[in-house]
Amino acid sequence: MDTFYCSEIKVGLCHLPEGESHHAARVLRKRQGQSARLIDGNGMVATGTFEEIHKKNCVVRIQNITNHPPNKSFLHIAIAPTKNLDRTEWFLEKSTELGIQQITPILCKHSERKVVRKDRLQKVIMAATKQSMSAFLPTLDDLTPFAHLLDGLTTKYDQRFIAYCGDGPTIDISAIPKHDTKTIVLIGPEGDFSKEEYQLALDKGFVGLTLGKSRLRTETAGIYVAAAFRTAQ
Amino acid sequence: MDTFYCSEIKVGLCHLPEGESHHAARVLRKRQGQSARLIDGNGMVATGTFEEIHKKNCVVRIQNITNHPPNKSFLHIAIAPTKNLDRTEWFLEKSTELGIQQITPILCKHSERKVVRKDRLQKVIMAATKQSMSAFLPTLDDLTPFAHLLDGLTTKYDQRFIAYCGDGPTIDISAIPKHDTKTIVLIGPEGDFSKEEYQLALDKGFVGLTLGKSRLRTETAGIYVAAAFRTAQ
Repeated sequence: MDTFYCSEIKVGLCHLPEGESHHAARVLRKRQGQSARLIDGNGMVATGTFEEIHKKNCVVRIQNITNHPPNKSFLHIAIAPTKNLDRTEWFLEKSTELGIQQITPILCKHSERKVVRKDRLQKVIMAATKQSMSAFLPTLDDLTPFAHLLDGLTTKYDQRFIAYCGDGPTIDISAIPKHDTKTIVLIGPEGDFSKEEYQLALDKGFVGLTLGKSRLRTETAGIYVAAAFRTAQ
Repeated sequence: MDTFYCSEIKVGLCHLPEGESHHAARVLRKRQGQSARLIDGNGMVATGTFEEIHKKNCVVRIQNITNHPPNKSFLHIAIAPTKNLDRTEWFLEKSTELGIQQITPILCKHSERKVVRKDRLQKVIMAATKQSMSAFLPTLDDLTPFAHLLDGLTTKYDQRFIAYCGDGPTIDISAIPKHDTKTIVLIGPEGDFSKEEYQLALDKGFVGLTLGKSRLRTETAGIYVAAAFRTAQ
């Protein structure tokens, strides 16, 4: 059964948004009476059948709704997009499959990539959410300058980490709590964070995090952190 | 400092193999006197300087050799190559960065991809080993039919797992020992293992393994298992 996104799932008739309607009608060539699985990205999963097919407005009659409770842990990764954007897209796909909750692309001093197309990244996340049969769509933020991110953090995190390869006090990822915690991890660009950025994070209560012995690429570091927290789900 | 592969590292002069010599001379345009880092893929890491540059035979004078002890854990993943080979190459790159020891591409009943170019996959593993500054090159086996793999297992594993999405007794990856163990994990193609393959593995002492709540793609399952064992390194 194919999965479609619909922000408002309710008993009765649900109207798919235009992009999803086009996908259902023109790409998957759905017909009246065929089954559909709907997610609102926020825990609600419904099944039903297509009542109307139109490239701009498909209607699904809902037969069953399940509301999934959110994960007890919350993982937010703020990561510098890679020069080769494919690598960032792989991180988005894999971390979504693995169950991350929030992703912020960040702009750092050593960033080689200074622009991203958010709509393109959002599509990767949406496809991975559907593919993995998850009920939750991770939040994707706008590209944010490093200092703005730190200044603007309003969420109360239980722990804040910065993955940094330079000198400084660090804790290994195997040693940090992963169950029932709200965690933010900062991952820098190919050239790592600058010393000033690292210091700024320390000043904001972040702790240095090491990710094992061998050197990891930016996107691998991100996937590895997401995997470590999935194990704890 | 760039890293080069050399199967025989010894005090004195080391001759790089032809492919590595070409890479040093023609791609990286190394000059006499420049530094080089050599790995034999088996724990030996050396540093030295280029003594001779030739596209077919570069010579490095070794100044320092370190012999790294192998990891206490040993992870072998046997995985069905994906229809889209890019995904398998991503698995190879990421699992190598994360520190896997052995990879066997397997041919299963539901495999959509029935051929792989081993030389191409080997290049991905070599590049990832150098990139991650690791001293160990994972072993890449030939594409092996599923039943042959099970029949031919001569290594003594402490634990044997098959990641299977169908019904049957399973243990969650978070619950298995990862320190100081020799482990093999089988990961099937997009259409999963067949019931007969699953039963065959059970008969050979394998135990079903679950990889968390949401569904993972083949290559993500592989990366996730490699990540779980890295955390234990």
